[in-house]
Amino acid sequence: MKYKIQVFLLAILMTGGIFSVQSQSEVVEDFKPSSVNQPGKQYPQVNSEGRVRVQISAPEAKLVQLDISAVKYDLIKNEDGVWIGESEPQDEGFHYYQLWIDGAAVPDPGSLYFYGASRWGSGIEIPAKDQDFYALKNVPHGQVNEHIYYSENSKSMRRCFVYTPPGYNKNKNKRYPVLYLQHGGGEDETGWSSQGRANLIMDNLIAEGKAVPFIIVMDNGTWRMPEGARRTPRGERPAGQWPPEGWADGFKNTLIKDIIPLIDANYRTLSDQQHRAMAGLSMGGMQTRAITLASPDIFSHVGMFSGGSISPEDVENASGFKEKVKLLFISYGSRELENRRAGFGGDPKENTEKLKEAGMNTHFYISPQTAHEWQSWRRSLYQFAPLLFKN
Amino acid sequence: MKYKIQVFLLAILMTGGIFSVQSQSEVVEDFKPSSVNQPGKQYPQVNSEGRVRVQISAPEAKLVQLDISAVKYDLIKNEDGVWIGESEPQDEGFHYYQLWIDGAAVPDPGSLYFYGASRWGSGIEIPAKDQDFYALKNVPHGQVNEHIYYSENSKSMRRCFVYTPPGYNKNKNKRYPVLYLQHGGGEDETGWSSQGRANLIMDNLIAEGKAVPFIIVMDNGTWRMPEGARRTPRGERPAGQWPPEGWADGFKNTLIKDIIPLIDANYRTLSDQQHRAMAGLSMGGMQTRAITLASPDIFSHVGMFSGGSISPEDVENASGFKEKVKLLFISYGSRELENRRAGFGGDPKENTEKLKEAGMNTHFYISPQTAHEWQSWRRSLYQFAPLLFKN
Repeated sequence: MKYKIQVFLLAILMTGGIFSVQSQSEVVEDFKPSSVNQPGKQYPQVNSEGRVRVQISAPEAKLVQLDISAVKYDLIKNEDGVWIGESEPQDEGFHYYQLWIDGAAVPDPGSLYFYGASRWGSGIEIPAKDQDFYALKNVPHGQVNEHIYYSENSKSMRRCFVYTPPGYNKNKNKRYPVLYLQHGGGEDETGWSSQGRANLIMDNLIAEGKAVPFIIVMDNGTWRMPEGARRTPRGERPAGQWPPEGWADGFKNTLIKDIIPLIDANYRTLSDQQHRAMAGLSMGGMQTRAITLASPDIFSHVGMFSGGSISPEDVENASGFKEKVKLLFISYGSRELENRRAGFGGDPKENTEKLKEAGMNTHFYISPQTAHEWQSWRRSLYQFAPLLFKN
Repeated sequence: MKYKIQVFLLAILMTGGIFSVQSQSEVVEDFKPSSVNQPGKQYPQVNSEGRVRVQISAPEAKLVQLDISAVKYDLIKNEDGVWIGESEPQDEGFHYYQLWIDGAAVPDPGSLYFYGASRWGSGIEIPAKDQDFYALKNVPHGQVNEHIYYSENSKSMRRCFVYTPPGYNKNKNKRYPVLYLQHGGGEDETGWSSQGRANLIMDNLIAEGKAVPFIIVMDNGTWRMPEGARRTPRGERPAGQWPPEGWADGFKNTLIKDIIPLIDANYRTLSDQQHRAMAGLSMGGMQTRAITLASPDIFSHVGMFSGGSISPEDVENASGFKEKVKLLFISYGSRELENRRAGFGGDPKENTEKLKEAGMNTHFYISPQTAHEWQSWRRSLYQFAPLLFKN
C-alpha cells in the first residue's frame, strides 16, 4: 500500500514535470502571415513570441524540417500530407531560413526571396517593437534606380542600385551628398534596399526632418580572399594578419576609379570630400575601414556596422584621417558583443572612446538584443544617417 | 527451325525498334550552366538541343521530378544521394519551372527566381538564335527606377518600375515619350524588366539607332475577375461576353487617374496623346485593348502581344479611335496560332488586315516557334518599339 502511494505520488510529480516542460514550450496561437510572404500566401507565419511556423505539402516525404538561426526543427505531417511546425522564439527583425525535405535544402515556396548566405533564399520578418522606422508609409518616397554600367577596372558589366531621395526628380537644380553603402559577405547589391529597407528608413527619416536628403549608392563589393588567407575547413583563421593586406584593393579600385566618377557624372551630386560618406556592414564595414583609412581625401563620414572598428593606432598610421574625417560611427548588435564577435582590431567601444578623447567626432551604438543580422544594420543606418552631412 | 528464325528476326526488329527510340532521345552531352543561375551555381544546365538538366542533393527522397512546360520528368539518384535528369528539348527563350521532392513543389535552389504563374519560382533561359537583341552588352544603358507611390484610386501603396533611356540623366532639358507596358496574368510589375529584358532590348535598339529613346512604365495590373465571370473548374468560360464588360476598370482608373499624372509630374515626359503608348502581353494585352478603345484621347500607339486583337467592329464602336490612334500592333507566338489560342475576338491577322485596308496603320507579327511565353513577348517588343513615336 505504502509502495503504491509512493508510485502514485511519483507519477504525479513526473506528470507535473512533464506538464511544466510542455508549459514552457507552449505555443501562443496568434500566428499571422509574415509581412514578407509572396502575394496571397498564408505561410510562413509568426506569432507574438516571435516563433516561425511553416507549412508545406509533401505527402510522400519522410522528414521535413525548418532550418532557422542554425537550428533545425522537425515538422509534423497531418492526414492531408501537409507538414507543419514552428521554431523557438526568434530575435526581432529579419532572418534568412530554409526548409529541408528528405535531405534537400530548398527555399520555402511561401516566402519572398532574398540574397544572403551566398544564395537566393527564404526570409522572414519578426515584428519588432521599433519597426515603425522602416515601415512602408504614405510619406514622400525616393526611388531606387537599377544602374547597369561597364567597369574599366574589372573589365566587366556591373550593376549598382542608387537611391535618390524624395524631391530629387522635382528639384531639378539641387545637388545632393552621397553615401556609398556596402553589404556583407555572401550578400550583394540588392541587400540594403530589400531586406535592409534603406530606402524606407531614409524616406521616413527625411519625412520627419531627422536627416538631410542624400543619395545612397549600393554596389557589389564581393571579393575573393587570396587562397592562402582563407579559413581552414575547420573555420580557423590562418596565421598572420587577418584580413590579409591588400584584400580590399579590388573593390577599392572599382569604387574610386569607376563607381564614384559614374555617380558624379549621372546624378546631381555634391562631389567633394565633405559631401561623400562610406559605410558598410560586416565585410562591407571592413572594406569601409580599409578604403577610408587609405583615402581620407575622398570620404569625410565613415560608418562600420558589425565590421570591426578603427583604433587610435590605425588613425595615427593613416595620414590625414584625423584632420579630414568629420564623423566616425561604429555599431554592433548586443549579442555580438556578448559573443565576443566584435574583438577584431580591439574593443570597438574602447577604440571609439579613445578617439573621442583625442578630438575625433565618434559615435558608438549598440542595437539591443540583436545578433549579426539585418535588424542590427537597419538600426545602425537609422542612427547613422541623421549624423551625416550636418557639419 | 523456321519458327526459331522468325523469333530471332522478331527479336532483331524489336531491338532495333527499342534502339531507335533510345537514339531519338539520346542526349547531347554539351550542357552548360543556364545564364540565369544564381552566382556560382553549376545547375540547372542547358544543352545545344535545348534540354534542361537539373541536379539536387536529396539523399532521403523517394521521388524527385523536374516540372517544365507542363511535363514532369523523373530524376535518377546517384550513389551520393544526388538526383539528376533532363527534359525533352524546350523552345528557345525563357521558361518557368519547378522541382517536386516527394510530393512537395519547390523552387530549384540553383536558379534565379522570377514572378510568374502567381508565384516566385525558378526560371531557365534556353539560348536562342536571335538572343543578341536582348543580350547585356557594353552599350549606353538606361536605368530602371523602383518607384513607390500612394494611389488615391486604390487607397493603397503601390509600386511601378520606370525605365529611363540612356542619356536621360545627362540631357537635363530633353523630354521623352512614354510607353505604359503591362505584364500578363499571374505576373507582376517586375516581369518586363526581369525575364522580359525590356530595358536591355531598348538599350540595344537605341544603341543601333533603331528606336527613338522613350520612357517605359511597368506597373501592376493584377485584377480580380468578377465571381460570376470566372472559368469553371473544368476550364470552360461562362456564358456571355468574355472578358466581362467592366473588368478592366479597376486598373484603368488607377492608370489614368494615378499613374499617368504621377509619371508626368516626376519624369521629363512629353505628356500629350501623340507621345503616349500602351501595350501589354496576354492579360495586359486585353487590358490595353479595353483601355485604349475607351480612351483614344489619351493613347496614340497600341500594342497587344498574345492578348487578342481589335476588330473593325471594335473600331467602329470606339469613337475617335480610328482618327486618333496612329499605330496598332498585334502579335502572337506561332505555336499559339497553331493551337488556335488566338481565336478570341476574331482571327487577329484578318482583323489587322481589314483595319489596314480601312486606312489604319496596323502591324501583325508572328514570333517563330514560340508559344504563350516570354520569348514571344521579347520579340514583340523588339518589333513594336522601332515603330513608336516616329510619325
